[in-house]
Parts: sequence; C-alpha cells; structure tokens
Amino acid sequence: MKNIDLLIDARWVAPVEPDDRVLDHHSVAVDKGQIVAVLPTERAHQRYRAEQHRTLPHHLLTPGFINAHGHAAMSLFRGLADDLPLMTWLEEHIWPAEGQWVSDEFVADGVKLAMAEMLRSGTTCFSDMYFFPDVVAREARRIGMRAAVGLILIDFPTVWAENADEYLRKGLEIHDHYRYDHLISTFFAPHAPYTVSDEPLSKVRTLADELHIPIQMHVHETSAEVQNAVESSGKRPLQRLDELGLLSPNFMAVHMTDLTETEIQQLAQTNSHVVHCPESNMKLASGHCPVQSLLNADINVALGTDGAASNNDLDMIGEMRSAALLAKLADAHSDASATAVDAHTALAMATINGAKALGIDQQTGSLTAGKDADITAIDLNHLATQPIYDPVSQLVYAASRDQVSDVWVQGQAQLESGRLSHFNTTHLIETADNWRARIQSFSNDDHETP
Amino acid sequence: MKNIDLLIDARWVAPVEPDDRVLDHHSVAVDKGQIVAVLPTERAHQRYRAEQHRTLPHHLLTPGFINAHGHAAMSLFRGLADDLPLMTWLEEHIWPAEGQWVSDEFVADGVKLAMAEMLRSGTTCFSDMYFFPDVVAREARRIGMRAAVGLILIDFPTVWAENADEYLRKGLEIHDHYRYDHLISTFFAPHAPYTVSDEPLSKVRTLADELHIPIQMHVHETSAEVQNAVESSGKRPLQRLDELGLLSPNFMAVHMTDLTETEIQQLAQTNSHVVHCPESNMKLASGHCPVQSLLNADINVALGTDGAASNNDLDMIGEMRSAALLAKLADAHSDASATAVDAHTALAMATINGAKALGIDQQTGSLTAGKDADITAIDLNHLATQPIYDPVSQLVYAASRDQVSDVWVQGQAQLESGRLSHFNTTHLIETADNWRARIQSFSNDDHETP
Repeated sequence: MKNIDLLIDARWVAPVEPDDRVLDHHSVAVDKGQIVAVLPTERAHQRYRAEQHRTLPHHLLTPGFINAHGHAAMSLFRGLADDLPLMTWLEEHIWPAEGQWVSDEFVADGVKLAMAEMLRSGTTCFSDMYFFPDVVAREARRIGMRAAVGLILIDFPTVWAENADEYLRKGLEIHDHYRYDHLISTFFAPHAPYTVSDEPLSKVRTLADELHIPIQMHVHETSAEVQNAVESSGKRPLQRLDELGLLSPNFMAVHMTDLTETEIQQLAQTNSHVVHCPESNMKLASGHCPVQSLLNADINVALGTDGAASNNDLDMIGEMRSAALLAKLADAHSDASATAVDAHTALAMATINGAKALGIDQQTGSLTAGKDADITAIDLNHLATQPIYDPVSQLVYAASRDQVSDVWVQGQAQLESGRLSHFNTTHLIETADNWRARIQSFSNDDHETP
Repeated sequence: MKNIDLLIDARWVAPVEPDDRVLDHHSVAVDKGQIVAVLPTERAHQRYRAEQHRTLPHHLLTPGFINAHGHAAMSLFRGLADDLPLMTWLEEHIWPAEGQWVSDEFVADGVKLAMAEMLRSGTTCFSDMYFFPDVVAREARRIGMRAAVGLILIDFPTVWAENADEYLRKGLEIHDHYRYDHLISTFFAPHAPYTVSDEPLSKVRTLADELHIPIQMHVHETSAEVQNAVESSGKRPLQRLDELGLLSPNFMAVHMTDLTETEIQQLAQTNSHVVHCPESNMKLASGHCPVQSLLNADINVALGTDGAASNNDLDMIGEMRSAALLAKLADAHSDASATAVDAHTALAMATINGAKALGIDQQTGSLTAGKDADITAIDLNHLATQPIYDPVSQLVYAASRDQVSDVWVQGQAQLESGRLSHFNTTHLIETADNWRARIQSFSNDDHETP
C-alpha cells in the first residue's frame, strides 16, 4: 500500500485525455498536488492508503474547467447595460463606467466575486484580460486558483498606464514576479486590432518570442470591425496581424465571428488558437464563430465566457451547452448539422483545449497522471439530469452549475459539498452591492449631459 | 384589516401585466387561490391579516412560468440519443423506443419526473403533446399543477389509438372529463402536417370551433419539412393548414423555423400564435424561428422547452436566456440586433404569452388581481446574480434554475425554500433509473439487426 494525500472515488470519470471515454467506478489518486493515477476504484483501494478519502457515488469527475477568455473584474458591471450592440455598449456604457470606477480596489473586489462564482461552478483556471493584472494575479495566488493573467496593452491612456511603454513595462514586472509560479501564468494581451497600433504589436511579438509566453487578442469580434479596417487600411485585421508575425502556436484569437476560408487555412497553418465566446457573441449580436469548421481544419478551439457584463454569468457548463447548441446552426462555412460540436467535444473545448491555448497543458486540462490535480465533481443525482444514459451528455445538455459539488485546484479543496473553502459569500455579496449603489447613483446623476 | 390566506412580501415583483415595470418592496396578497392585490409591502401590512406570511427579502416574484410546448413523459429518454438531426433522431431512435416502451405506466412515471423538474425550476403550467393524455391530466390534477393537455392525433396507429376516430373519441372523453376543471385545460394536438392528413384535420377544426378549445401543432419545424411538402403537394404546409381553415386565434404553430414574409402576415392577420422552442431547434439543427420579426408583426410568441429528449432539460429560465440570445443573431427576416428580445420580452414570452396561446390568460400568466395565484420566487442572493442593477436582467441572463426557491399554483405551495411539497425526489430518481436500465439493456441487444 502506498500512502497518498487524497483519493477520490467517483461513479464516473471523464478524463478527456487520452480520449473521450467515460470510466465507470473509477478513482483519482492525488499526491503532493498532482494526479498519480486514474484507476478502477476496487484497484485503488488495494493500492493506496489516502490521508483524505472522498466518496462521490452519484458524481462525474472531469478536469477542472478552463475559462479561456474573460474580464473577471467586470462582474461588478453585470447587468448594468443589456440588450445593446457591442460599440454602443462599449462606448456609451462600459468605457465611461470603467473610466469612472476602475481602480486597484475595484479590480480586487470584482475578481474575488468572479473567482468565487467560477470556483462554485467548477472552473479551476481562468484567463483574464483587464486593467490591474497585478491585482488579478495577487488575488488568484492568495486563493490558490489557477490563472493566466493577461498583460494588457491598449493605445490610449487609462488608469493603469499612460502609453505603450508603460503598459509593457508594468506587464513585464508582473511576468517576472510570477515567472516560477506554478499557478499563475502570464500572456500578452493587446486589446484588439482597432485599439493597438503596429509598433507596440511588433514589440509584443518580439517579447513574447523571447519570454515564450502566449499572446491573446480580440480579433474579428464583429463584421463591422473587419469592414472598418478594410475601409481605412485596405486590409482585414487578421491579415495585418499575420504580416506583423503574430500568428503562431502562441497566438490566441478571441471571438473570430467573421472568417474567410483562406483565413481558416491561415490559422491552421500557423497553429494559432481560437477562443470561442458563444454567449457574449450572441448577446452583443456580434455573430457566430464557425467552430466546427475550425475543428475540421484541426485548429484548437477553446471556450470562454467573456466578461460578466456581456454574458452575464461565468458559468462554463452553460457555455458548453451554448457552444454545442450554437454550433449546430448554419454558419458561414457549413450547413446546419446536429452532429456539430457534440457533448464530448464541448467538454474538451472547456478543458484540454483551453490548457493548450494558454500553453499550460503540461500542468492541467485533463485527468492524467503527472498533471496537477485540478478536478471538478458534478452531482448528477438531480431531477433534471435523470436518467443517465451518458453522463457527459447530462453534464453538457442538462446539468446546472449548482450541481458542481467539489472542486480541487492542485489537489487543494476549493469547493467542498457545495461550500466554498476560502470565500465568505455573504461578504462578497455585500461588497458587490456597495459597488452597485455607488455606480448606480453616479449613473442616475446623468453625468454625461451637463 | 382583512383576513386572507397568504401574504408574500418580496424585495421585487415583476407582475408582467399591465407592463414590464419592476416593483420594489411589494407584496402579493392571495385568498382562496386567487391574487387579491399586488401592493407596496408597507401598505399590505396595514391592510391584510394573513394566515400564512412569507417573507422573501432577496427575491424576485414573477408569474409562474408557462412551458407552452413539450412532451413531458419523454424525460425518461433524456440523453438517449444526442447530436443527431431531427429525422434520424425520430426515425432511428425515438420512434422505435416509443414503440417499445410507451405505456400508461411509462407516461405516468415520465410525467411525474417532468413535473417535479418543472416545479423545481419555477414552471407552474405546462402544455403537453403525447400519448396517454388521460394519464398526464390525472397526474397533474393529483399534484395540483396546471396543465394544458394535448389531445394527440396522428395518422398511424400507436399504443394509444388505432385510427383518427379512436384518437378523437379518446381525446373528447378527456376533454369532457376535465371541462369544468380550473387546473386542467385541453387542446387538440394533431402532431404535424406530415403526419396528419386533411380529413382528420378538418374534423379537428370543426370540433375545436364547437368546443372553443385551441389547436397546437408542430409546423415548419425544419426547411426539409417544407421542401418535402412542396415537392409532393406543390404547397407549403402553412398554406395547406390555412386552406383547411386552421389558422385562427385558437391556433398555435410550434417551431416555425422556415417562414416567408407572406406567411408572417398570414399568421398576424389570423391572430395565430407561435410557440418558440429555441434549444430544441438548435439541438436538432432545425433552424431558428425569427421571433423578433413575429413580435414586430404583433404576433403572440410563447416559449416552450419541447421534450427533454431534444433539449435536454425543462428549464424555462435557461430557455428564456436561449431565446433572448438566439434572437440577437441574424435570421431570415432581420439583421443581427442586440436589442432583439430583451430580458423583459423574454419574461413575457415565458409567462403571459404562453397563457394567451393556450387560452388561459384569464386564469394565469401575470400577477394581477383576480387571476389565480400561480407565482414563482427567485432568490437573487447568489454570487452569479450580483450585483443587481435590474432583477429581470439577472433572472434572464444570469440566474440558474436552482435559485427558484418557492412556487405556488392556485395559491398552494408546490415548492417551499427549494423543497418540493408533493414529490419524493429519491423515489423519482430510482424510478427513472429503473426505466433507464430496462431501456438501455434493450437498446444494447441490437434488436434492430437480427
């Protein structure tokens, strides 16, 4: 008998790698934060003596979900401005609110609310693109949640930095600080083609190559963005990014609702990644990323919720469902097909594909010996997920986020039988309500019309 | 002070009628199963002495949700066959399974599972189209859930009836039995244009006129259905139904993913209703009903989940979200618009519009004095629905079904602080699992290939 830290016995395990098989009555053995084996429960009981033993008789274990694109602190703007198109929403609501409110304190409170919501719903790792990435990294570290922190870059001055040099300098400081951290990774986060000019983008490319870190950028979020670029420069944004040398296995293009066949080939040939945010794209009427066509071209497609101001939740189970359902409608590159993005593909998008995109698939993204123990348990013993012909179908097409019962990050419990280990929910809600009161009273003052 | 049965004090009330205002700190006063007033809580405490007093300090009260189209008993087939197109799914999986398993007992068990799931998630009334409608009506009556029961009609013989005359005779018996029942209403449910021929449809029209009950039918669920009809008869199905005199304020056309401008006008002029099932339409790759264009033409559009075999849940909160998000994508009649089907419109579709379609809007569908007290309370004091700028936005875009805390039908508690009043959840799950074991072992026998 071998001594280990933790043994989790589950009714089903969907390890995602090496394939999409669902294992019956299997266990995950964890020691020193890492998965040491995934094996039949009977055999696990013969082989291991565990300090902690968790029995989950009605549960499906999956890799912890990876939210591959978001703006965590925007949870404090959730529902502030709904049912508006992207540019109206940004220019008339979100950017003014951000100008007024975003600060170290705002980001800390917003990220805490977001992390609690994400852990509660089975997400063990989130990618972030926002101001004060140092605060995001600090708060994730403190809680013990895995985070890929974007080093934001945008042409105009904000409360975070004055100019490209300052954005990059502050970003590099964060990168240096967390360079040997096993939970916090970094990537460059130039906001979008229409907000970052060539020179800083070239610098980002050089730095990313040197430091071996990825780049994530909003690209082709809407057809209007593409048209505007063509009108002003004669070029589609993706072409410009390609000419600047950005497309590579380290590049994540977020959204991609407008794509030509040539562009799909370009993404495939450069091994670039796409991050799909179906609910945000629908809510802002941005369009519909042709996910199945990208997958057919062997492009890695990850899944993100985007910020809570345009979704409006950070629920990866809901996002898997939306991705699976939306993919079945006709898009620019394929007819409607009910076989597009099946349940198992959606689960891969929400786990291993996110890890690959963020360059952390050696550490996380599947339940595989040698990886960190980032694990989510979903209790399927609920009315809406019965009967169970295929537990992964029930997860993707019928489960709700509240059925997530237990979550571990690097083998540490973050959610135990539905209770968050490191957050005081009441306090988080009070803090959010305080922000709402301030933000709402300011908005009601009609500050924009003197 | 007036004595009443029940007073519910809520942080917010969204009565839906007369308009989409959200009332702060309001109460709903209930007596003898009916709403007697919706008024400020302070005033309610001066005016009423209630036998039962419920205080919901973080909750939004809405009319109980009305699931305007479904096949409740199919909950036992949930997840049996996913990621397949409509006709493959029907012909190779669902119809054979139904042929093998559907019986009085199957329908009773399936409907109980479905009703428990629906009440748990805030639905107080469901419309049903399936075999053994007598069993559906009986079980709904027994529990005290409101149901609109479809009197099924289909050209081919099934376990329920041999031919049109028998379908109609058995349907009329059910109608007679429940004719004075305040909870159970009935409607004729000819399955679809491609499964019911002209003669029985003409009979249905005559009978519906005589009895003043509605007709609900799957119409234009896919473009293939429309094409097939045009090829075989030279006519689009809706035209044929119009020629048969079916289009009227008593007619509900379910799905309608393929519509011409002329057909939209035809529906508007005849005051026909449309029932939209966005998740089922996406999952089966059927297409996308142009909801905002229908609403613009003043057509009443209700919302349904369809059966759990093609959704795969019966969650009207999720369905409102999907309806709101999907409507914002481009469709055959409009460009993409983030303003399409806003949160308040989605709530109306899930409540009053369903009541109008089913012809029961005198009894239910809004929190209005004189209507039955069909009420749903949603606890917004959760991480994912904070902060609260607009409670209806939080309901539609961020809440999960598990935040439904309390449900009343005709003033009787059906869900109290998250507990179902009249169901044993453990027993329901055991029964569902027994059915799964039988169905799955039969499927695994490869019964179709000798």
